Amino acid sequence: MTPGADGQSPRRRGRPSRTARTDGPDARTRILEAARTEFAERGYDKTSVRGIARAADVDAALVHHYFGTKDEVFAAAIEVSFEPALVVPAILGGSSEDVGERLARYFIGVWENPASRAPLLAILRSALTHEAAAKVLRGFVLRRLLERIAEGLDVPDPTFRAELAASHMIGIAILRYVIRAEPLASADPEKIIAMVAPTLQRYLSDR
Amino acid sequence: MTPGADGQSPRRRGRPSRTARTDGPDARTRILEAARTEFAERGYDKTSVRGIARAADVDAALVHHYFGTKDEVFAAAIEVSFEPALVVPAILGGSSEDVGERLARYFIGVWENPASRAPLLAILRSALTHEAAAKVLRGFVLRRLLERIAEGLDVPDPTFRAELAASHMIGIAILRYVIRAEPLASADPEKIIAMVAPTLQRYLSDR
Repeated sequence: MTPGADGQSPRRRGRPSRTARTDGPDARTRILEAARTEFAERGYDKTSVRGIARAADVDAALVHHYFGTKDEVFAAAIEVSFEPALVVPAILGGSSEDVGERLARYFIGVWENPASRAPLLAILRSALTHEAAAKVLRGFVLRRLLERIAEGLDVPDPTFRAELAASHMIGIAILRYVIRAEPLASADPEKIIAMVAPTLQRYLSDR
Repeated sequence: MTPGADGQSPRRRGRPSRTARTDGPDARTRILEAARTEFAERGYDKTSVRGIARAADVDAALVHHYFGTKDEVFAAAIEVSFEPALVVPAILGGSSEDVGERLARYFIGVWENPASRAPLLAILRSALTHEAAAKVLRGFVLRRLLERIAEGLDVPDPTFRAELAASHMIGIAILRYVIRAEPLASADPEKIIAMVAPTLQRYLSDR
């Protein structure tokens, strides 16, 4: 959604406005959506809590209340793309023989969807060019996503293995969606999943 | 072959300066070193042929003579990091049962060496943020490195498979050297090679 495109209330800078939409069941969601859009369109360093608040049509204090600092909003914006709390149990919960395929299918699905791809690319770009963003991704990747996956694995060095799996998915995203190297860029997602699933399977289950 | 690298037909843009060090056995090498440093330190868009010439202490016309446009200097600067003409035969020339390990060892070796890592990181950053750089990498990755590897493979979809292998190496480089996600960032290179070699082996030999 375009920032402020709903046209419901004027944007104010400076002191909290009484006209800004305040707390409510969807204020948190609106802030996260605005954060994803702002980080995707402006990059990490040009995005501010104030700008996110403006785009979400809330007061900046509410952004701080829900998320804290800019880095914490950034981490939450990454998390909303991956939904680890929902996804990790779904990936690890089924038969251990198909965990590689489920992980490959999940990652390719996230990247194939333009709505989640744009913010993820922005995050990756930011992390490659700004240490602050790299630090957030390092913390997020480790603590939230990979370690949750690693906890459910019955292999030696589970975090190391989860990182190798993640590295492959990140590299595919870069070659396919950013550099657009053919034939990978135009390959059927199912063909990629079929080739990559056994790799992830070996990393995550040693089989 | 790099345009103009045969040295047969000089391109002239502006008149060569008499004060700059001119052509010689090491002028080409000096230009490439300067280009790697300039692209690494300034990024793709802030690097100019004129700046590279200044850093190499040659006239800009000589840079054009050897390499052509800025994009062609960029491609040559990537190539000098990978040395595909030397490396591809060495990787593909030995026993086909160890091709995965040789490729893993070669890539990790290139990235472990700070002298080649810095320009490669700069290239990756540039390609993620500038379409012009992505286009060069796309052309280089495809035409020079991956297709040379693919030509030597006896598998279906060799370029697709070579790209999957490359994507894994790129992703490992990003997680290990840029984001520095632990434990991958501190892992012994031999441990990474041991885990990744069977993946590359399957992609490149179907075994």
